[in-house]
Amino acid sequence: MLKEAIYHRAGNNYAYAYNETTLHIRLRTKKGDVDSVTFIHGDPYDWTKDGWQTSRSLMTRTGTDEYFDYYFIAISPPFRRLRYGFELKSGTETLVYTEKGFYKEAPFDDTAYYFCFPFLNGIDVFRAPSWVKDTVWYQIFPERFANGDTSNDPEGSLPWASEEPKFNNFFGGDFQGVIDHIDHLVKLGVTGIYFTPIFKAKSNHKYDTIDYLEIDPQFGDKETFKQLVKVCHENGIKVMLDAVFNHSGYYFEPFQDVLKNQENSTYKNWFHLREFPIQTEPRPNYDTFAFEKSMPKLNTENPEVREYLLKVARYWVEEFDIDGWRLDVANEVDHSFWREFRTAVKSVKPDAYILGEIWHDSMNWLHGDQFDAVMNYPFTNAALDFVAKETIDARVFAEKMTAVLHMYPENVNEAAFNLLGSHDTKRVLTFCDENKNKMKLLFLLMLTFKGTPCIYYGDEIGMTGGNDPGCRKCMEWDEKKQDLDLFEHIQSLLSLRQNHKVLANDGELKFINADEQTLVYERSTDEESVWILLNAGQRTADLSIEIPEGYSNILGTSFSGSLPGYSFSIYRKK
Amino acid sequence: MLKEAIYHRAGNNYAYAYNETTLHIRLRTKKGDVDSVTFIHGDPYDWTKDGWQTSRSLMTRTGTDEYFDYYFIAISPPFRRLRYGFELKSGTETLVYTEKGFYKEAPFDDTAYYFCFPFLNGIDVFRAPSWVKDTVWYQIFPERFANGDTSNDPEGSLPWASEEPKFNNFFGGDFQGVIDHIDHLVKLGVTGIYFTPIFKAKSNHKYDTIDYLEIDPQFGDKETFKQLVKVCHENGIKVMLDAVFNHSGYYFEPFQDVLKNQENSTYKNWFHLREFPIQTEPRPNYDTFAFEKSMPKLNTENPEVREYLLKVARYWVEEFDIDGWRLDVANEVDHSFWREFRTAVKSVKPDAYILGEIWHDSMNWLHGDQFDAVMNYPFTNAALDFVAKETIDARVFAEKMTAVLHMYPENVNEAAFNLLGSHDTKRVLTFCDENKNKMKLLFLLMLTFKGTPCIYYGDEIGMTGGNDPGCRKCMEWDEKKQDLDLFEHIQSLLSLRQNHKVLANDGELKFINADEQTLVYERSTDEESVWILLNAGQRTADLSIEIPEGYSNILGTSFSGSLPGYSFSIYRKK
Ligand SMILES: [Ca+2]
Ligand SMILES: [Ca+2]
Repeated sequence: MLKEAIYHRAGNNYAYAYNETTLHIRLRTKKGDVDSVTFIHGDPYDWTKDGWQTSRSLMTRTGTDEYFDYYFIAISPPFRRLRYGFELKSGTETLVYTEKGFYKEAPFDDTAYYFCFPFLNGIDVFRAPSWVKDTVWYQIFPERFANGDTSNDPEGSLPWASEEPKFNNFFGGDFQGVIDHIDHLVKLGVTGIYFTPIFKAKSNHKYDTIDYLEIDPQFGDKETFKQLVKVCHENGIKVMLDAVFNHSGYYFEPFQDVLKNQENSTYKNWFHLREFPIQTEPRPNYDTFAFEKSMPKLNTENPEVREYLLKVARYWVEEFDIDGWRLDVANEVDHSFWREFRTAVKSVKPDAYILGEIWHDSMNWLHGDQFDAVMNYPFTNAALDFVAKETIDARVFAEKMTAVLHMYPENVNEAAFNLLGSHDTKRVLTFCDENKNKMKLLFLLMLTFKGTPCIYYGDEIGMTGGNDPGCRKCMEWDEKKQDLDLFEHIQSLLSLRQNHKVLANDGELKFINADEQTLVYERSTDEESVWILLNAGQRTADLSIEIPEGYSNILGTSFSGSLPGYSFSIYRKK
Repeated sequence: MLKEAIYHRAGNNYAYAYNETTLHIRLRTKKGDVDSVTFIHGDPYDWTKDGWQTSRSLMTRTGTDEYFDYYFIAISPPFRRLRYGFELKSGTETLVYTEKGFYKEAPFDDTAYYFCFPFLNGIDVFRAPSWVKDTVWYQIFPERFANGDTSNDPEGSLPWASEEPKFNNFFGGDFQGVIDHIDHLVKLGVTGIYFTPIFKAKSNHKYDTIDYLEIDPQFGDKETFKQLVKVCHENGIKVMLDAVFNHSGYYFEPFQDVLKNQENSTYKNWFHLREFPIQTEPRPNYDTFAFEKSMPKLNTENPEVREYLLKVARYWVEEFDIDGWRLDVANEVDHSFWREFRTAVKSVKPDAYILGEIWHDSMNWLHGDQFDAVMNYPFTNAALDFVAKETIDARVFAEKMTAVLHMYPENVNEAAFNLLGSHDTKRVLTFCDENKNKMKLLFLLMLTFKGTPCIYYGDEIGMTGGNDPGCRKCMEWDEKKQDLDLFEHIQSLLSLRQNHKVLANDGELKFINADEQTLVYERSTDEESVWILLNAGQRTADLSIEIPEGYSNILGTSFSGSLPGYSFSIYRKK
């Protein structure tokens, strides 16, 4: 066995509390290298005259990626304490792997050899709000969803959809528009809205906050917003707002004060000013988001700034009953701030959802003390590469997703925010070169995957659009111009997901087969199993699998050994 | 190159902020597999029309353990943001390793391939108090150090050292005894005292706390303790107390209340009581330390318990000016409590030291939000195995220590609490079968190693003793019975460490040679280099190394190609 490939460290995705009584333990080995792994475990203090008392349990292989196999066990130590090691077998070879290294036989004269989960303290368990894992999000860019009140339209607003979206044009979308169209969301099956920023700002995207405590007047007033939240809640829809706490906008009063009063500004420690006078060219001499002079980085280490931002965080939850915060550029703000942010938000609403925008490995934010989830861009990229761009085959897709699912704890995966596109990317249909069948498969994938899916407004009716600003077109409300077939496809998948929670986050996910452009995976609990089969290729493909006895076709084409191009089948057994 | 052996994940010991401007990055590869590693790095937002702007820097190989080599680089990104990858070369083969996997050539069309350290926020830097890295600790078990006031002796106290230590005998040691003998510590060169518990308790070891806010009367009163701290501070000695927050003693009032009032006790949520009535046999039906019925585990998730313990934590710092807390069974208490504990203690004394008792992999407690250090038992074990027990050779010792040093960030290593023995273990001289020369080498090792060393009272004068209670003999104050040669050896090493901080924590540590029982390592800064040579074997050994030009012998025997049994040499160049 290849010792150099064997990996476990007590922590992160390898050893964690899944809930108040259960620990999850994983082990990584070289792909195809090991026949079986036995988990050796005991309470560290459980000694008799015969020595340390241990048990043995077989681990399950839960996945394979490009280089590695992953083994897994869930265990509930009676006294919440655990020392453990791994016995690996390959042919006639046996290897025992412990924190102190490798042994031919498990040593039992001391527990100190073994990995340790010292105590399962309930308060340390990573715990996203329980409603999240059944939620289907819908992302709204308020300026472009619907104009329900022309009286608040900003000066120079254009007639709805009369032009292509530009960096600086306005169409007058607002809260009343969302209220007016809530039926559309209910009909689709959405149970949460993620709004991009709604606070006072200058741009059409509102990421350049001027006042974190005020609604932008073009969207309505605080009363309308209260009404909007109420309407959402009455329709079983949660509301999540977007907070830009990494940096303010240029016209944020404290920054304006700094520009005016320079070194004498009482706000000079609200930012990271490297020298005076402040200059913006060629590069700003203060810290910003990227090198964007109009987005000065907030000094979240300054207690005054903390107090202000935490007040903001609490205010919108307390006064408007919102259900979650999506945090822009969350990775560049200090961990210490996010810990206080979590405490503040959860003290007001214990089941509020905290979602960080992080595009890279996010383990450091997902230990239960900071975020409930991050935006799952690795899923986005792999899904688009596999189905839309056809740059990777099904095997590579399965390996990539296996790697991602094993990079994080299971309770983290269940709350992950899965998306196929957003206001920051090309629209998914455009990614598919407007091939609607591909797009249907992408939604099939996302809506039968672990995590909580998010639909970008308009994708469900077949809207197209290139990179920002192209992806921010006005929503199409003319039913004749809406792709109702697509709408029904997504609607039926959402209904399936709602009725069979095994497809959401109650079930395990296991890849059964991945061959060229065909993929088969299983979602299962002890009681129920669903197989999803899909062919992401243009031509009919034969699949080298058989659906086991007792399964029946619940959606998609019927499977008889082959699948037509761009088609799918869903089978279920109870 | 063996891809399965290559490891990096942004976080833990592999990517961390060393200070407010410097990041440390490490990479692991298969032992002897790679010729060189080039670090490819840039600011994630630094794009020109030529694409993403990156730099290349060669990484240094900092060590080798049983299976792996480790590469290192320190880097100060101008805008505190970093995206990075690794280019590995072996012969004619080149491999680029990124967060997204392996490539033949570094891809520059997107930064998303690369590992990310999104922003170096000063507040998140792991930062032990600066005084700690120059501190030499001395551990005192107060009942057995010196009896300076017979008026406070507990009933039935025995004349000093008149008997072997037992689980339940008393000799009357107290604070006045420490005050009286402060000169001994000053003469030795000690700069910190770690006291095992001093709070009101029943046993002689006082780990069974009755009252966390009272001094045990056998040690004196609060005035005497204040006086003791004052005397220590006047002599340049820091004071660290031992806190047992995982569990209380049986006679802790809240637990007595629970025993008496059972379900009706107002303290029933202070513990983890699984059912009523409480029973202690055969195993307690409430959570305890181990299965010890007299040590009920405290429910640190209960806000009342938190408030009480945090009050305790602040009280002894605020009122008595102590400099640190050593936390007993720290690994079994929740992380959430330790985060609040850190905030509470540091708010009273920002440079207080927080040391956790953890015997296993401690990474999860050492991210800067909980402890400043843990007790470095891996060092203890490897050093004893190598020198005292001779069960491992110098190569294995060097590999084990390389593994440990690379398991943690460098700023963590600098504050690690290194020990050769304690009140919980056999005394080091007894481990050495009373071979004083071996013991001298063990102290040489510890006192020229990274971390902050701790001397267990009496070791410096040659006291012996087996496992608890044997290791808790009364301190020998009769100079004729003290081993003054040993004392002088340790004293001279401490003086050397004090005068050449390169031997403490200012210098890098690098193993130069490890052959059977001889070991050579270097401590160095840019200005200074010290070589330590030692022969842990009984017989003279030839060493296959030469001391480079310009070094002179500053302690130990002069080296001319061989070292006599159990001898050492220290050479220095400036
Ligand atoms: Ca409007
Ligand atoms: Ca006394």
